[in-house]
Amino acid sequence: MTLTTTFYDAIENRRSIYGISKEPVISDERIQEIVNHAVKYVPSAFNSQTARVVILLGDNHTKLWDITTQTLKGMVPEDQFASTQEKMDSFNAGYGTVLFFEDMSIVEGLQAQFPSYADNFPVWSLQSSGMLQYTIWTALESEGFGASLQHYNPLIDEEVKTTWNLPTSWKLLAQMPFGKPTVEPNPNKEFEPIEDRVKVLK
Amino acid sequence: MTLTTTFYDAIENRRSIYGISKEPVISDERIQEIVNHAVKYVPSAFNSQTARVVILLGDNHTKLWDITTQTLKGMVPEDQFASTQEKMDSFNAGYGTVLFFEDMSIVEGLQAQFPSYADNFPVWSLQSSGMLQYTIWTALESEGFGASLQHYNPLIDEEVKTTWNLPTSWKLLAQMPFGKPTVEPNPNKEFEPIEDRVKVLK
Repeated sequence: MTLTTTFYDAIENRRSIYGISKEPVISDERIQEIVNHAVKYVPSAFNSQTARVVILLGDNHTKLWDITTQTLKGMVPEDQFASTQEKMDSFNAGYGTVLFFEDMSIVEGLQAQFPSYADNFPVWSLQSSGMLQYTIWTALESEGFGASLQHYNPLIDEEVKTTWNLPTSWKLLAQMPFGKPTVEPNPNKEFEPIEDRVKVLK
Repeated sequence: MTLTTTFYDAIENRRSIYGISKEPVISDERIQEIVNHAVKYVPSAFNSQTARVVILLGDNHTKLWDITTQTLKGMVPEDQFASTQEKMDSFNAGYGTVLFFEDMSIVEGLQAQFPSYADNFPVWSLQSSGMLQYTIWTALESEGFGASLQHYNPLIDEEVKTTWNLPTSWKLLAQMPFGKPTVEPNPNKEFEPIEDRVKVLK
C-alpha cells in the first residue's frame, strides 16, 4: 500500500466534507484495496473480526440515498422537507458510500461463550467499528476524496438489508458518502482547551 | 508533528504488544504531544469533544496496576491468581498507561438537548472513544513503543477516580499500558477471508 502521507498529517487533515461530486479520484480497485486494508488491520476484541463493510458505487450508491430520502419523506413534516432533500441530494452527488456493519451473530456468540464479559462485547464491538470508520474516513481523504459520517440507521436498516440481500445478523452502524471534494471544510472548527481534556500525572 | 511513518504503514504495524519495559523511548513531552494531537483531531458527534485522557507515568502508572491487582485479588480464586499476577506484573513493567474516559455530563447534555437522538449519543460516544484509543495506540507504536488495550473497568473505576481526584462524570472505558517492546507480537495473527467481510456493489 503506497501513499506518502504521514500518519500525523492524515490524522490532522481528516475533516467532514459535505460538498462532493462523482468525478473519479482513484480507481474502484484502489477504493476496494484501501477498504480491505483497513478491515484487515483494524483490531477487534479477542480478534473477533466482527466488522462487515459494503461499498456502494454507481447505481447502488444512488439507490441508498433514494431509500433514505423516501424513508425520511414519511417522517419529516412536508414544510421542512426542502432542507432534508438538499442534504440527501448532496450525499447522492458523491461517488460512492461505505456502509459499516457489525455481525451481531459473532458478538452474541462471544457473549454465550464468555458470560462474565457478556455486557462488554457489544460495547467493544461499537468501539472497534469506530476505529474502522475512522481509518477508512482518514484513508479516503488521504487519497483525495472528501467524506463524512452519517447515521440514518436504524430507519433504513430493513430496506438496506432487503435491497442488497444482506445477512439479518449484520447491524448497520454508519454510512459514509464520499466523492471528489467541491468545497473546503469549515475553517472555523472549534476546539476545547486541550488542558481541560488531557491530564499528565507523573 | 514530525514522523515519517506513512499512514498505511502505521495501520499495518500496530499490534497488541504485551512485553514492555520502563526504558524510555521518547520524552514525556513528546508522549503528551502525540496524545494531545490525537485528542484534538479525532472527531466526535456534533463536535462534542467528549473524550478525556489521563496519562499515568512513573509512580502513578505503578499505582494503577497495584489498584487493579488488589481489586482482582478479591475476585479471582486464590489458586488461579498466579497467572493474573503475572499479567499485572507485565503491565506494571511498562513505562506508562493511558486511561481513556468519556465525559458523560456532555453526553447527557446532548441527550437532553436533542431528545430524538437520545439513544444515539452514548453509542456515538463509544465509537468516538474507539477512534481515539486506536489513534493513540497507533501513534505510540509508530514512535517506537509497544502497547495493548485493557479493560479492567468498571471494576477499578471508583478507586481510579478517588486516587486521582477525577470528575465523577468521567466514565472509564479503557486502559493502555505502553513501554519499550521486549518481545515481538504474535507472528501468527489469524485473518478471516476478506471477501467474507467486504462486499463491493457497483
